[in-house]
This record gives sequence, C-alpha cells and structure tokens, in this order.
Amino acid sequence: MIIPVDLAKAYRMLNHGPVTLVSSAHGDQRNVMAAAWAMPLDFSPPKVAVVIDKQTFTRGLVEASGEFVLNIPARGIAAQVIAAGGHSGRDGDKFDALGLATLPSAVVAAPRVAGCVGWLECRVIREPHNEQAYDLFLGEVVAASADARVFRDGHWLFDEATDPNLRTLHYVAGGQFYATGDSLQVASD
Amino acid sequence: MIIPVDLAKAYRMLNHGPVTLVSSAHGDQRNVMAAAWAMPLDFSPPKVAVVIDKQTFTRGLVEASGEFVLNIPARGIAAQVIAAGGHSGRDGDKFDALGLATLPSAVVAAPRVAGCVGWLECRVIREPHNEQAYDLFLGEVVAASADARVFRDGHWLFDEATDPNLRTLHYVAGGQFYATGDSLQVASD
Repeated sequence: MIIPVDLAKAYRMLNHGPVTLVSSAHGDQRNVMAAAWAMPLDFSPPKVAVVIDKQTFTRGLVEASGEFVLNIPARGIAAQVIAAGGHSGRDGDKFDALGLATLPSAVVAAPRVAGCVGWLECRVIREPHNEQAYDLFLGEVVAASADARVFRDGHWLFDEATDPNLRTLHYVAGGQFYATGDSLQVASD
Repeated sequence: MIIPVDLAKAYRMLNHGPVTLVSSAHGDQRNVMAAAWAMPLDFSPPKVAVVIDKQTFTRGLVEASGEFVLNIPARGIAAQVIAAGGHSGRDGDKFDALGLATLPSAVVAAPRVAGCVGWLECRVIREPHNEQAYDLFLGEVVAASADARVFRDGHWLFDEATDPNLRTLHYVAGGQFYATGDSLQVASD
C-alpha cells in the first residue's frame, strides 16, 4: 500500500543516501534516469539537490516542465536502475524499454516509477548558474509518498520487512550496489 | 594502512551516500561536525556538495579557511558521529571532548578524523549565493585517501573485510543509522 508522507519527514526518505531514479515529463514525452548524486537540502519546506547532466534527455524535460520526481528504487528493480543509466530516452520510451510501470503523481505531471519504495515530487527552484556551471538542480518537495511495508510514521522499517528485495540501494560504479544493511541505534544526547 | 586514492576514483568513496564528518581548521581553532547531506558533484576534477548550517561553528572555520575534509566514518565510531552532532565546537575542542584522534591531511590544514575509512580533502569553490541562500557549499577534492582494509583500487571492499565495524554508515534521524549492507552486482550493458 502506498501512503502519503508528511512533508516535514520527507527528508528522511533520502537522508540515508540511496540511489534514485529521476522521472520527468513534458508534453507527450516522459523519461527516467538513474541518479546517485541526490541529497536533501532543507527540512521545511523540504528541498533536495540533484545532479542532472546536460547530455541527458531528462535534462530538457526537467528544464521545460520545472518538475521532476525523485523515486527511491528497491533492490527488486536493481537491474532496471542499471539499464536506466545505459539507455537514452531519445531512443524511445524508456519506461516501455525497461518494463517499468508508472503511477500518477499527486501534484506534478511526471509519473512515479513502480517498484520504488519512496517518491519525492519536486518543483525546480530555478538557479540557472548552478544548472549551467555544475548540472546542479535544486527542488522543493511538494508531495511525498512511500510503500507502507518499509516506510511508516516517518521511519524506514527495513528490519521489519523480511523481503530483502524491498531494501533500498546505494550505488558505487560499474553495476555494483550495496543494499541498505542492518539498523543500529545510538543514544542521542 | 592508509593509502592515497586516485582523484579520478575519489567520487566512489561518497557515491553510495554514507554519512560524513566535516572537519575544519583556521588559526588555532579546529572542529568536526556530522553531515549526512553530502554528495559527489563531478568526476574530474572531483567535486562535492555539502550542507553546512549557518548556526554551526564549522561554518565560520570553513568560510575563513576555504577548506574542509569530508571524513567517512566507520561503524566503529557511530557513537562519536552522533555526539559530534550534539555538541558545539564553541564549547571547547570537540575532538578532545569526543575522544576523536586526528591525522594530518596531505594538502589542507584541516585534520583527518581517525576511525574513519575514507577522507576527501576539499577546497571550497566559492559560491556566495548558494552558501547564503541554501547553506550549500561546493568543494573541489584536492586529495583523497582510504583505509586499505576496505577501499582499494577504486572500490569499497566491505564483503572482504570481515569486521562489521569497518562498514560505512547511512544516517536516518534520532540516532538511527543503517550500516552499508550486502554487495550486489548487476551486469552493465
């Protein structure tokens, strides 16, 4: 079951540094790309930063629409995350090519990617210098949602979910990931 | 044994989204803070982005020196990572307070933090608007090094290292981390 996530807790979905899929849409075109270089930027309103290279088809769709979704894939679609990095949306609809289903978003036009366990719908905060000089895009999170099997009440619950394919992924290079591992709790002071 | 890391592979140390410690120094002052909001920004020359709040003692040291180190802590010092977020360097030397030893850096004046498994020495790329509006600092990585037990030849090797305390950490909130988990390899195309 997919549940809405309180915007004040939305940063927690990205805080542990998972790889993301960036989905975008403009007019009758849509695309999805893999992005490991994404992070929270602020708590409230929640903001994110993500690197979107000038060479990508996604770049034009994000610039034209001013919107994107950061999708947080689960281990079960690791192969599609790699394939999303190896294909271009210029060569045909990448969702169809990869067998990735979509879900409509709550606020933005870009779709959410099925098989993910968290979704951050974002509006671009236009910063042309960052975009040109660094391929760096900033976004405000305008809606957030999660797969309730692994994220509820503002917390990831990977230790409760027994299916390892529901864990999030951390990308290194060359097709190698680390899955999100054991939880540990340190007393805060 | 600590080994130098080829700058072309430096992004891989941060690519999987681990929590970091930001160390800094200026004049006779030094400090260390925890930062989960850090990511690679470019491959070559390698660049990083990190959020450093205006309220922090670290902020002044980074602004004055134009340098910082992103230290990648291992699970063995998880308690100190949390404590680093709960103390201010304004109240006395935080390395001493937390029992964190330091190592001299290769290029920058800020020290490297012992108990970490990777180190990215950075020079600030001054972007005053980002710093003021978003607390967002960009840096060029000018030297990189790693604990050879877990990072060699441009790769993390957590599955070879049998000591779980050498794994890196992914921070959520409230003292809760996930350790870096199992490796998985997907064929790249």
